[in-house]
Amino acid sequence: MPLYVVATPIGNLGDLTARAREVLASCDGVVAEDTRHSGNLLKHLGIHKPLYSLPAFDEAARVEPLVRRLVEGQSLALVTDAGTPAISDPGAILVRRALEAGVQVVPVPGANAAGAAGG
Amino acid sequence: MPLYVVATPIGNLGDLTARAREVLASCDGVVAEDTRHSGNLLKHLGIHKPLYSLPAFDEAARVEPLVRRLVEGQSLALVTDAGTPAISDPGAILVRRALEAGVQVVPVPGANAAGAAGG
Repeated sequence: MPLYVVATPIGNLGDLTARAREVLASCDGVVAEDTRHSGNLLKHLGIHKPLYSLPAFDEAARVEPLVRRLVEGQSLALVTDAGTPAISDPGAILVRRALEAGVQVVPVPGANAAGAAGG
Repeated sequence: MPLYVVATPIGNLGDLTARAREVLASCDGVVAEDTRHSGNLLKHLGIHKPLYSLPAFDEAARVEPLVRRLVEGQSLALVTDAGTPAISDPGAILVRRALEAGVQVVPVPGANAAGAAGG
Protein backbone atom coordinates (compact mmCIF):
# COMPACT_ATOMS: atom_id res chain seq x y z
CA MET A 1 0.00 0.00 0.00
CA PRO A 2 2.64 2.63 0.71
CA LEU A 3 4.35 4.55 -2.06
CA TYR A 4 8.08 4.52 -1.30
CA VAL A 5 10.21 7.29 -2.76
CA VAL A 6 13.68 5.81 -3.15
CA ALA A 7 16.54 8.15 -3.97
CA THR A 8 19.08 5.94 -5.72
CA PRO A 9 22.67 6.83 -6.50
CA ILE A 10 23.08 6.92 -10.26
CA GLY A 11 26.83 7.26 -10.13
CA ASN A 12 27.79 4.39 -7.89
CA LEU A 13 25.31 1.56 -7.39
CA GLY A 14 27.48 0.21 -4.56
CA ASP A 15 26.42 3.24 -2.49
CA LEU A 16 22.85 1.97 -2.20
CA THR A 17 21.73 1.52 1.40
CA ALA A 18 20.53 -1.82 2.76
CA ARG A 19 17.08 -0.36 3.43
CA ALA A 20 16.70 0.94 -0.13
CA ARG A 21 17.74 -2.48 -1.42
CA GLU A 22 15.20 -4.17 0.85
CA VAL A 23 12.38 -1.85 -0.25
CA LEU A 24 13.17 -2.50 -3.92
CA ALA A 25 13.26 -6.24 -3.26
CA SER A 26 9.98 -6.40 -1.33
CA CYS A 27 7.72 -3.94 -3.21
CA ASP A 28 5.24 -5.10 -5.86
CA GLY A 29 6.58 -2.88 -8.61
CA VAL A 30 9.07 -0.13 -9.41
CA VAL A 31 8.10 3.22 -10.95
CA ALA A 32 10.94 4.80 -12.89
CA GLU A 33 11.50 8.22 -14.37
CA ASP A 34 14.43 6.75 -16.23
CA THR A 35 13.73 3.10 -17.03
CA ARG A 36 17.25 2.51 -18.33
CA HIS A 37 18.82 3.59 -15.06
CA SER A 38 16.24 1.77 -12.95
CA GLY A 39 16.46 -1.34 -15.12
CA ASN A 40 20.22 -1.43 -14.65
CA LEU A 41 19.78 -0.93 -10.93
CA LEU A 42 17.34 -3.84 -10.56
CA LYS A 43 19.57 -6.02 -12.74
CA HIS A 44 22.56 -5.09 -10.57
CA LEU A 45 20.57 -6.15 -7.50
CA GLY A 46 19.27 -9.33 -9.17
CA ILE A 47 15.66 -8.17 -8.69
CA HIS A 48 13.00 -9.13 -11.22
CA LYS A 49 9.69 -7.30 -11.00
CA PRO A 50 7.36 -5.02 -12.98
CA LEU A 51 8.97 -1.74 -14.03
CA TYR A 52 6.57 1.12 -14.84
CA SER A 53 7.83 4.17 -16.69
CA LEU A 54 6.73 7.68 -15.82
CA PRO A 55 7.89 9.88 -18.69
CA ALA A 56 7.22 13.61 -18.52
CA PHE A 57 5.24 13.73 -21.77
CA ASP A 58 2.50 11.31 -20.74
CA GLU A 59 2.40 11.40 -16.96
CA ALA A 60 -1.31 12.01 -16.41
CA ALA A 61 -2.31 8.88 -18.30
CA ARG A 62 0.36 6.82 -16.55
CA VAL A 63 -0.31 8.02 -13.01
CA GLU A 64 -3.93 6.95 -12.50
CA PRO A 65 -3.39 3.19 -13.07
CA LEU A 66 -0.50 3.34 -10.60
CA VAL A 67 -2.65 5.09 -7.99
CA ARG A 68 -5.26 2.38 -8.51
CA ARG A 69 -2.64 -0.30 -7.79
CA LEU A 70 -1.68 1.48 -4.57
CA VAL A 71 -5.29 1.86 -3.44
CA GLU A 72 -5.86 -1.82 -4.17
CA GLY A 73 -3.05 -2.72 -1.78
CA GLN A 74 0.12 -2.96 -3.85
CA SER A 75 3.27 -1.23 -2.67
CA LEU A 76 5.30 0.66 -5.25
CA ALA A 77 8.77 2.20 -5.17
CA LEU A 78 9.25 5.45 -7.08
CA VAL A 79 12.93 5.58 -8.01
CA THR A 80 14.40 9.08 -8.14
CA ASP A 81 17.91 10.29 -8.84
CA ALA A 82 19.73 10.82 -5.55
CA GLY A 83 22.20 13.04 -7.35
CA THR A 84 19.75 15.89 -7.65
CA PRO A 85 18.11 15.32 -4.98
CA ALA A 86 14.66 16.30 -6.15
CA ILE A 87 11.45 14.56 -7.06
CA SER A 88 10.68 15.11 -10.75
CA ASP A 89 7.44 16.69 -11.92
CA PRO A 90 5.90 13.36 -13.04
CA GLY A 91 6.99 11.87 -9.73
CA ALA A 92 5.44 14.76 -7.82
CA ILE A 93 2.15 14.23 -9.63
CA LEU A 94 2.17 10.57 -8.59
CA VAL A 95 2.91 11.56 -4.97
CA ARG A 96 0.13 14.16 -4.94
CA ARG A 97 -2.47 11.85 -6.43
CA ALA A 98 -1.44 9.01 -4.09
CA LEU A 99 -1.88 11.25 -1.03
CA GLU A 100 -5.24 12.46 -2.31
CA ALA A 101 -6.28 8.80 -2.58
CA GLY A 102 -5.23 8.16 1.02
CA VAL A 103 -1.93 6.41 0.30
CA GLN A 104 0.97 6.90 2.71
CA VAL A 105 4.24 8.15 1.16
CA VAL A 106 7.50 6.96 2.71
CA PRO A 107 10.87 8.45 1.74
CA VAL A 108 13.81 6.05 1.55
CA PRO A 109 17.18 7.76 1.27
CA GLY A 110 19.26 5.68 -1.12
CA ALA A 111 22.62 7.01 -0.09
CA ASN A 112 22.88 9.99 2.25
CA ALA A 113 20.52 12.31 0.41
CA ALA A 114 18.27 12.90 3.44
CA GLY A 115 21.14 14.18 5.53
CA ALA A 116 22.25 16.49 2.75
CA ALA A 117 18.75 17.83 2.14
CA GLY A 118 18.04 18.29 5.83
CA GLY A 119 21.33 20.05 6.64
CA MET B 1 8.19 14.11 12.53
CA PRO B 2 5.52 13.09 10.03
CA LEU B 3 3.75 15.60 7.84
CA TYR B 4 0.03 14.81 8.00
CA VAL B 5 -2.14 15.91 5.11
CA VAL B 6 -5.59 16.44 6.58
CA ALA B 7 -8.49 16.97 4.22
CA THR B 8 -11.01 18.93 6.24
CA PRO B 9 -14.62 19.57 5.33
CA ILE B 10 -15.10 23.29 4.81
CA GLY B 11 -18.85 23.09 4.55
CA ASN B 12 -19.75 21.14 7.66
CA LEU B 13 -17.24 20.99 10.51
CA GLY B 14 -19.36 18.30 12.17
CA ASP B 15 -18.31 15.91 9.38
CA LEU B 16 -14.71 15.81 10.63
CA THR B 17 -13.56 12.28 11.46
CA ALA B 18 -12.29 11.31 14.92
CA ARG B 19 -8.84 10.53 13.50
CA ALA B 20 -8.52 13.93 11.80
CA ARG B 21 -9.53 15.58 15.06
CA GLU B 22 -6.95 13.55 16.97
CA VAL B 23 -4.16 14.41 14.50
CA LEU B 24 -5.00 18.12 14.75
CA ALA B 25 -5.05 17.88 18.54
CA SER B 26 -1.74 16.04 18.86
CA CYS B 27 0.47 17.65 16.19
CA ASP B 28 2.93 20.43 17.02
CA GLY B 29 1.53 22.90 14.51
CA VAL B 30 -1.00 23.36 11.74
CA VAL B 31 -0.08 24.54 8.23
CA ALA B 32 -2.96 26.27 6.48
CA GLU B 33 -3.59 27.38 2.94
CA ASP B 34 -6.53 29.35 4.23
CA THR B 35 -5.80 30.55 7.76
CA ARG B 36 -9.32 31.86 8.25
CA HIS B 37 -10.86 28.46 7.55
CA SER B 38 -8.23 26.60 9.57
CA GLY B 39 -8.44 29.10 12.42
CA ASN B 40 -12.21 28.60 12.59
CA LEU B 41 -11.73 24.84 12.50
CA LEU B 42 -9.24 24.85 15.41
CA LYS B 43 -11.48 27.22 17.35
CA HIS B 44 -14.46 24.93 16.72
CA LEU B 45 -12.40 22.00 18.07
CA GLY B 46 -11.08 24.02 21.03
CA ILE B 47 -7.49 23.47 19.89
CA HIS B 48 -4.85 26.12 20.55
CA LYS B 49 -1.56 25.74 18.70
CA PRO B 50 0.73 27.47 16.19
CA LEU B 51 -0.95 28.14 12.84
CA TYR B 52 1.41 28.64 9.88
CA SER B 53 0.10 30.13 6.66
CA LEU B 54 1.17 28.90 3.25
CA PRO B 55 -0.06 31.50 0.76
CA ALA B 56 0.58 30.95 -2.93
CA PHE B 57 2.52 34.20 -3.45
CA ASP B 58 5.29 33.47 -0.95
CA GLU B 59 5.44 29.69 -0.63
CA ALA B 60 9.17 29.14 -1.21
CA ALA B 61 10.16 31.38 1.70
CA ARG B 62 7.53 29.80 3.95
CA VAL B 63 8.24 26.15 3.14
CA GLU B 64 11.87 25.80 4.21
CA PRO B 65 11.37 26.79 7.89
CA LEU B 66 8.51 24.28 8.05
CA VAL B 67 10.67 21.51 6.55
CA ARG B 68 13.31 22.37 9.16
CA ARG B 69 10.73 21.91 11.94
CA LEU B 70 9.78 18.49 10.54
CA VAL B 71 13.41 17.38 10.24
CA GLU B 72 14.00 18.52 13.81
CA GLY B 73 11.23 16.19 14.98
CA GLN B 74 8.05 18.24 15.05
CA SER B 75 4.89 16.86 13.50
CA LEU B 76 2.81 19.20 11.37
CA ALA B 77 -0.66 18.90 9.88
CA LEU B 78 -1.21 20.43 6.46
CA VAL B 79 -4.90 21.29 6.26
CA THR B 80 -6.41 21.04 2.79
CA ASP B 81 -9.93 21.58 1.54
CA ALA B 82 -11.74 18.24 1.44
CA GLY B 83 -14.26 19.75 -0.93
CA THR B 84 -11.86 19.72 -3.84
CA PRO B 85 -10.15 17.16 -2.97
CA ALA B 86 -6.73 18.25 -4.13
CA ILE B 87 -3.51 19.40 -2.56
CA SER B 88 -2.80 23.01 -3.54
CA ASP B 89 0.42 24.04 -5.26
CA PRO B 90 1.97 25.52 -2.10
CA GLY B 91 0.94 22.37 -0.24
CA ALA B 92 2.48 20.17 -2.93
CA ILE B 93 5.77 22.08 -2.65
CA LEU B 94 5.80 21.46 1.11
CA VAL B 95 5.08 17.74 0.54
CA ARG B 96 7.84 17.45 -2.07
CA ARG B 97 10.45 19.22 0.02
CA ALA B 98 9.48 17.20 3.12
CA LEU B 99 9.94 13.90 1.22
CA GLU B 100 13.26 15.08 -0.16
CA ALA B 101 14.35 15.77 3.42
CA GLY B 102 13.33 12.25 4.46
CA VAL B 103 10.04 13.12 6.16
CA GLN B 104 7.16 10.64 5.98
CA VAL B 105 3.86 12.01 4.62
CA VAL B 106 0.63 10.56 6.01
CA PRO B 107 -2.76 11.31 4.47
CA VAL B 108 -5.67 11.73 6.87
CA PRO B 109 -9.05 11.80 5.18
CA GLY B 110 -11.15 14.39 7.02
CA ALA B 111 -14.51 13.15 5.88
CA ASN B 112 -14.77 10.42 3.26
CA ALA B 113 -12.48 12.00 0.65
CA ALA B 114 -10.20 8.95 0.38
CA GLY B 115 -13.07 6.67 -0.46
CA ALA B 116 -14.33 9.07 -3.08
CA ALA B 117 -10.88 9.53 -4.62
CA GLY B 118 -10.14 5.82 -4.58
CA GLY B 119 -13.47 4.77 -6.05
